[in-house]
Amino acid sequence: MSFFRRGRRARASAPHITPRSEAIAVARVELAELTPPTKVYLGQLAYLALILFENLSRAVILAPTTEAKTTLSRATAEMLHAHEALVSEMRAAGIDPVAAMEPFRLELDDFRRRTQGADWPETLVTCYLTGGFLTDFFTGLAAGLPSALSQRVSLLLDIDTGQQALVEQLRSSIEASPRLASRLAMWGRRLVGDTMLVARSSLAIGGQLPGEERIEPVFTELISAHTRRMDVLGLTA
Amino acid sequence: MSFFRRGRRARASAPHITPRSEAIAVARVELAELTPPTKVYLGQLAYLALILFENLSRAVILAPTTEAKTTLSRATAEMLHAHEALVSEMRAAGIDPVAAMEPFRLELDDFRRRTQGADWPETLVTCYLTGGFLTDFFTGLAAGLPSALSQRVSLLLDIDTGQQALVEQLRSSIEASPRLASRLAMWGRRLVGDTMLVARSSLAIGGQLPGEERIEPVFTELISAHTRRMDVLGLTA
Repeated sequence: MSFFRRGRRARASAPHITPRSEAIAVARVELAELTPPTKVYLGQLAYLALILFENLSRAVILAPTTEAKTTLSRATAEMLHAHEALVSEMRAAGIDPVAAMEPFRLELDDFRRRTQGADWPETLVTCYLTGGFLTDFFTGLAAGLPSALSQRVSLLLDIDTGQQALVEQLRSSIEASPRLASRLAMWGRRLVGDTMLVARSSLAIGGQLPGEERIEPVFTELISAHTRRMDVLGLTA
Repeated sequence: MSFFRRGRRARASAPHITPRSEAIAVARVELAELTPPTKVYLGQLAYLALILFENLSRAVILAPTTEAKTTLSRATAEMLHAHEALVSEMRAAGIDPVAAMEPFRLELDDFRRRTQGADWPETLVTCYLTGGFLTDFFTGLAAGLPSALSQRVSLLLDIDTGQQALVEQLRSSIEASPRLASRLAMWGRRLVGDTMLVARSSLAIGGQLPGEERIEPVFTELISAHTRRMDVLGLTA
């Protein structure tokens, strides 16, 4: 779901688009012991994929050109595919997918409403930043899953079409209307707060929140990755 | 895109859900000579698939339960797949997909805005009725495409997961709130008017609208199919 890698390799001249490797390397080490039970992890991630799909489909609906609609619809299809693959993983493991997703509905629906954005550029920023942050986070948590499942989920989270398209659309919107940059920078700052709250609350599922000393290194790295995503857009984090 | 068949076979005790075979048989005979050039047909249908996808994704966003979201997301994925397959057909034929879709953007975006519905039940009715009507119509027009393409497009339009799900969700909404029926019946009547206008204007692309005597038998059959779709919901057409 963090999309990127092919795009990044293909455009060596553009600024680095994602710092996934560093952020994930740290997150995987720090998060492996905090991974919730498989049912909880898969249910939460599957509902999150629905939410990220809803944001992307909203970006398709609001897109002002046929080209943008077509490009973003491909990213949307990949996110839906990830959701369906997670549902299949649950079925294969004898887990009822609806029951596993249900505990996360209210919080994640509320998160989506608060972060959906007021117009097309804000919605694109939402897809780019919350998608990137939470994909890094859940890829880190995947390190603690049973080994074969961990590999499959990590692959699933490594699909990479969307963010390149989001960055290109956003860059041309910002170029066409430079005053947009400060509004989107503010929006990005607000998003990272809401997104971190969702990630933190994931760690508390089924028990107490781990101590700050366990959480802090992970979040430091995830926030650095967020800052680098903002940089790619030319926005101040 | 009219989804159905598997569902219908699997639930022999439920009322007939779609009258596709009859409506399409008539439409194919009557419409074969009115089929626009391949580029126009594929461009228009690909943009229409985007619009139908946008309606379905809106239904996912508005869905009040995890189960409804998951079920409808599968229908949404199939519609996106149809859109992508049409884009691939255009590329394979040396047609620029964006240029081919562009002439239909304003009219179809406007159609979507006028028909999106005010809430979840109205949006479901929109997906069910406009999706059914326009799929019948374009399946009829496909009869006039070059033979191999005609077969591939007809197969593409015969995907069938969504409408069964839409009917089930609508039936339970109407049971839970009987007063909804009269509101949805009115909504259905308004939709068929707007949908017919879109279909009629398709026939005029690249030339004059054919005479009423050519159009009437097709529309009589498509409207009968629409009435039967309303019947399945227990609504008066």
